[in-house]
Amino acid sequence: MQPAPSYPFAQRLGHVETSAIREVFKLLGRPGIISFAGGFPDSALFDVAHIEEAARQALAQQAAQALQYGATEGFMPLREQLAALMQARGASVRAEQLIVTTGSQQALDLVGKTLAEPGCKVIVEGPTFLAAIQCFRLYGAQVISAPADAHGVQPGALERLIEEHRPRFVYLIPTFGNPGGATLTLERRRRVLELAVRHQTLIIEDDPYGQLWFDAPPPPSLLALTSEVPGSRDWLIHCGSLSKILSPGLRLGWMTAPAPLLAQAVMCKQFSDANTSAFAQAVAANYLAAGHLGQALENARRVYARRARVMGQALHEQLGQAIAFTPPQGGLFIWARLTGAGGALADGAALAPKAIAQGVAFVPGAPFFATQPEAATLRLSFATAGEDDIREGVARLARALRV
Amino acid sequence: MQPAPSYPFAQRLGHVETSAIREVFKLLGRPGIISFAGGFPDSALFDVAHIEEAARQALAQQAAQALQYGATEGFMPLREQLAALMQARGASVRAEQLIVTTGSQQALDLVGKTLAEPGCKVIVEGPTFLAAIQCFRLYGAQVISAPADAHGVQPGALERLIEEHRPRFVYLIPTFGNPGGATLTLERRRRVLELAVRHQTLIIEDDPYGQLWFDAPPPPSLLALTSEVPGSRDWLIHCGSLSKILSPGLRLGWMTAPAPLLAQAVMCKQFSDANTSAFAQAVAANYLAAGHLGQALENARRVYARRARVMGQALHEQLGQAIAFTPPQGGLFIWARLTGAGGALADGAALAPKAIAQGVAFVPGAPFFATQPEAATLRLSFATAGEDDIREGVARLARALRV
Repeated sequence: MQPAPSYPFAQRLGHVETSAIREVFKLLGRPGIISFAGGFPDSALFDVAHIEEAARQALAQQAAQALQYGATEGFMPLREQLAALMQARGASVRAEQLIVTTGSQQALDLVGKTLAEPGCKVIVEGPTFLAAIQCFRLYGAQVISAPADAHGVQPGALERLIEEHRPRFVYLIPTFGNPGGATLTLERRRRVLELAVRHQTLIIEDDPYGQLWFDAPPPPSLLALTSEVPGSRDWLIHCGSLSKILSPGLRLGWMTAPAPLLAQAVMCKQFSDANTSAFAQAVAANYLAAGHLGQALENARRVYARRARVMGQALHEQLGQAIAFTPPQGGLFIWARLTGAGGALADGAALAPKAIAQGVAFVPGAPFFATQPEAATLRLSFATAGEDDIREGVARLARALRV
Repeated sequence: MQPAPSYPFAQRLGHVETSAIREVFKLLGRPGIISFAGGFPDSALFDVAHIEEAARQALAQQAAQALQYGATEGFMPLREQLAALMQARGASVRAEQLIVTTGSQQALDLVGKTLAEPGCKVIVEGPTFLAAIQCFRLYGAQVISAPADAHGVQPGALERLIEEHRPRFVYLIPTFGNPGGATLTLERRRRVLELAVRHQTLIIEDDPYGQLWFDAPPPPSLLALTSEVPGSRDWLIHCGSLSKILSPGLRLGWMTAPAPLLAQAVMCKQFSDANTSAFAQAVAANYLAAGHLGQALENARRVYARRARVMGQALHEQLGQAIAFTPPQGGLFIWARLTGAGGALADGAALAPKAIAQGVAFVPGAPFFATQPEAATLRLSFATAGEDDIREGVARLARALRV
């Protein structure tokens, strides 16, 4: 018998492993499971009719461009629409100052490729987006968690970590963060930008959820606030995404950054995938130009706000003192902590299989911490289950907690 | 005045620069220029009507999947269609043995991310695809050219280089290569696979052009031939693309590799762009399932074959002894060498601006060599200009050569 071949893998692969979340997802195929585990929008909210209209227009009027290779920077009509989206939210960005990426995951990959390497350090919130942690680790970065609370990252603690570790960059999801659901206050946003200037440290603002507010818009993005903090625009990279507000299947995100950084990101993207699908870009450009996003966003906000409220109430009613959380003001997630009250379980990873046995799935919180994981945490998405399923799923969760 | 900020770029950026081809492309906007510089298919050949039908079907019947996140490995109906494409060309591949990539450029990026790192060596053909050289360098590889002739890479020389350098992998475009246009003979294909087994060295077969043959199909792919060379399948990664045969704007490529390599590539892709556009994948799956590719390929083969012949004849008539080339049997390119006969220029880079001044563009050949550039070479694409424009463009090239 031949021995199995031994392949010369790069050392960087030793820094990461396939996400713990993927393992949870494998269990979701079981019939009857109610899932709070997803990190995606509800397919029922996709504006299919208007997307079809936009696709038809792309092929009827722009086929030679939509089906051809395109500029690495992106399809100009889409860049213009994305600049307008950011302008409408108070940020001053021209189309030439942003590039289109293959989902905002690629923006993170380009940040890593451009800035991270073995021996460098990166600071993120604890907890944060797992695929960001893994992405940066794959480029060799040591990823360090900064403490966050219900109002986002704590600027005092962040400053001490910046002084101690001199990171290549600080990665934040300041608005309705995944998984924490927290929103950085206006005061803290200003302090973070001041920190960036004082310590000449890049901040990555990842903002896929900012438009998904419930009762009132969140504070302005860090990007918008750079105009109030002199010098801070030089230290801010902002990543946006159409995945949560239009469709993940188009795989469209974007990134705006100071010109020298953007130029290097474009160079890296040239050798990552050359350009993002021109067809998907043309479809999105037509959709946005036709002005349909406003209505689609209103629908999504209304549906998600109601589901968030239903889940919050059910958790209070069914789990009582055994669970603690801050009701989110937007986004897709409730981030909760098992308190152990009344001797109940206080470990998310231990609860997960019991929950699956009861017919409900969620994601344990510990993997979302780059360092110092909090075992008692869990992430519950209210985005994709209907209101009755949310109530039933929470009842099952309560049963799992008592088993 | 504030000093310009100094950003902490990763060292890897020092290994590459924005491609020389991009610089040539900036000049193409000038009105009246006939371009032989492109590396893309003719937009006029896109099968727009059937692509629109496929898009309508995706949104009418599969919207919840096509507009949602998808598996990192790819959309299963497309994986099945791609497996069938390869089976039809004599290779034994199941859908589970391939992953969909965001263009085949991403397959190269995943090869680099998975296997290359500082201090390692990679062997490529001289000349080869520039974005492959740059992609591997960005991951720290030292890229070495193996000599190639009109019949592709020379196995004897390749074996000596493998023994000397112990490369992480050997990257080849065995069929109608870019830019060299050469096709590896059947005999050499077998020898390359034997080398792979004997030296336990991975071969990357990049095959975007294999279906674009003119008079007769090329020899079977290395992938198909692995069945004849025991053990060789363990050492072969095969990359395919829909860009040259369906549409670059869908940004769809694929990669098949031994299971442990494919698993690591999937892990890397998870943090590169999570998944390739599900919408684009559904459109392509529907298009292929409807059986339209055969007719589209026949059209493309006929048009490109004619243009290749016209360009070849015009070059002989207009440039005579001043240029030497082997007429291609498929693909998009004529790779030529300026002989200097009669005292004419024998430097592609020096000819390029003179040609632009005469109203014709091409790409000088030297940048396509990872090492030991041949200054007298140039790449001429016959794919996107009509026959009259090809004759006129070659006449201009002849004038440029005489100036």
